[in-house]
Amino acid sequence: MKILLTGAAGLVGSEITELLLEEKYFAVEKIVGIDNFTLGTEKHIAEFRKNKKYEFLNLDCSKPNWHSQLSTKQFDLLIHFAANSDISLGHKNPDMDCRLTFETTFQALMAARELKIPNFIFSSSSAVYGENPVFPTPENCSEMHPVSVYGSGKLASENFISGFVNNYGLNAWVFRFGNVVGKKLTHGVIYDFVKKLRKNPEKLEVLGNGKQNKTYIDVRDCVEGICHAFTKSKPGKTHSERFQVFNLSSEGATSVQMIAEECANVVTAGKAKIQYGESSIGWVGDVPKTSLEVSKMKKIGFQTKLSSTDAVKKSIHEFVEWTK
Amino acid sequence: MKILLTGAAGLVGSEITELLLEEKYFAVEKIVGIDNFTLGTEKHIAEFRKNKKYEFLNLDCSKPNWHSQLSTKQFDLLIHFAANSDISLGHKNPDMDCRLTFETTFQALMAARELKIPNFIFSSSSAVYGENPVFPTPENCSEMHPVSVYGSGKLASENFISGFVNNYGLNAWVFRFGNVVGKKLTHGVIYDFVKKLRKNPEKLEVLGNGKQNKTYIDVRDCVEGICHAFTKSKPGKTHSERFQVFNLSSEGATSVQMIAEECANVVTAGKAKIQYGESSIGWVGDVPKTSLEVSKMKKIGFQTKLSSTDAVKKSIHEFVEWTK
Repeated sequence: MKILLTGAAGLVGSEITELLLEEKYFAVEKIVGIDNFTLGTEKHIAEFRKNKKYEFLNLDCSKPNWHSQLSTKQFDLLIHFAANSDISLGHKNPDMDCRLTFETTFQALMAARELKIPNFIFSSSSAVYGENPVFPTPENCSEMHPVSVYGSGKLASENFISGFVNNYGLNAWVFRFGNVVGKKLTHGVIYDFVKKLRKNPEKLEVLGNGKQNKTYIDVRDCVEGICHAFTKSKPGKTHSERFQVFNLSSEGATSVQMIAEECANVVTAGKAKIQYGESSIGWVGDVPKTSLEVSKMKKIGFQTKLSSTDAVKKSIHEFVEWTK
Repeated sequence: MKILLTGAAGLVGSEITELLLEEKYFAVEKIVGIDNFTLGTEKHIAEFRKNKKYEFLNLDCSKPNWHSQLSTKQFDLLIHFAANSDISLGHKNPDMDCRLTFETTFQALMAARELKIPNFIFSSSSAVYGENPVFPTPENCSEMHPVSVYGSGKLASENFISGFVNNYGLNAWVFRFGNVVGKKLTHGVIYDFVKKLRKNPEKLEVLGNGKQNKTYIDVRDCVEGICHAFTKSKPGKTHSERFQVFNLSSEGATSVQMIAEECANVVTAGKAKIQYGESSIGWVGDVPKTSLEVSKMKKIGFQTKLSSTDAVKKSIHEFVEWTK
């Protein structure tokens, strides 16, 4: 299998590279990783550079025709992970989500069409559901109206993938992630709390009242789930059999309060005083409660190894260690 | 009311200008119409140029910051109709739907945010539903996966409008049109048939088997529906009360065969021989059957004057006259 991967230096991109190079699911002939280090870092990919099967290119894949700079043009699979993954950034500057999330997807689709890459994997998000009252939320829920520009960028991307599947013979696997956590975090609640606590070990100010309760998934579980679904859930002939959507997260959820306390424990041995805000949301576009129906992944035989809270705890410990 | 209107020289844009200048629904102080004549024409707006309340600007509103070229910056309402409205064009060149439909919407949203325009009206389409098995299709149907890049562009636009509503205090009215017809057609089945028959009055070749059955709406009914909903359905406080979606079409549907026969009657007095293809769809991304549930518009007191088939017949006669 020859694989083209965008967002290669990010949290999920670097983890799937590691898993793919293990060849646990299928033989891998070549991985070409693309990133321009908007959020990802060189440190995340350093270990892969030694592998002969891995090639890295510093490219901005929001630009039209970026694929013309590839030396290899034959691929079996395009994994598109490049995106703005920081929701609150998108509120300040909506152009970020348009360029880094939507536009990169459109250009990845144009690359797949041009290079005749038959298979396309996309990292979507639970944010596409908006403030949905059905918990846990199933893939086929109605009235999906995103409340963050981040969620808009992800759902708009899905909608163009759907059109390309029907028009240009692509097969697509779309994964709506819960909050993905691991040691290579580039943003998000754990990242912010640890950073704040290192700056001021006396107190931790939490945006919102701490009661937000969301689903988290360990990054290893996340990429195992992707490879599992890609190999087990083969595309059929109809549009819905070729444009496949899967919720991908742990069952259950974890509160912001729990995360704040665990971060304070690990970074300051419990010394930091935690101060909560009053709002039920942390920022504009924040969805205070997320819980995903994951029975579709279960039906094809996949379950995460770690629960939401175990994933969070592991990530806090590993992230603190990794960024020492 | 001061109104900024994109796609001002198109079929629906020129019709809503006419209706707004009649001041049937509310007083109008100023209309600034924007178009760059990609599909619209100068002839469509010629009559408005005499009106002191109307100002026209030739601008490409897919470009960032196009609104900086406006002389007036204060508006109460942005009506965004600029788009690629030709579905089969989008199949040949998906970049058209990305630039002319999605990107214009994103830039219109950025303009609304920048200029603090509180109200936003958007022309969406039944194409957002994809191959949906529920007929007539309601606004809250699940699994909306577009099968045309045109539909992708429209739904992706809706997704960003939803995000902007929550992030930047916008109120939005989104209308999912059936096939809008009238004398100022710029493309579509009637446009194509009349053009073909004028070139060769002996025969009319129809793409597909003629059995496609779709919902049509007269352009006057369409713009009356928009103004009716905008004045009757006031935004509330919650996201779903501020991001309002309405199907807007006639009840019932009209077959391609009926349209072919009527065009042959009007243009060639029934002399042309009609030849049908074998496919159930006219082009890739064509949805062979559309029927919209319009009870939401009915609930606020709106019903079209013309049925789908009467709208089609009127349009054929008027278009043939208008383009003589």
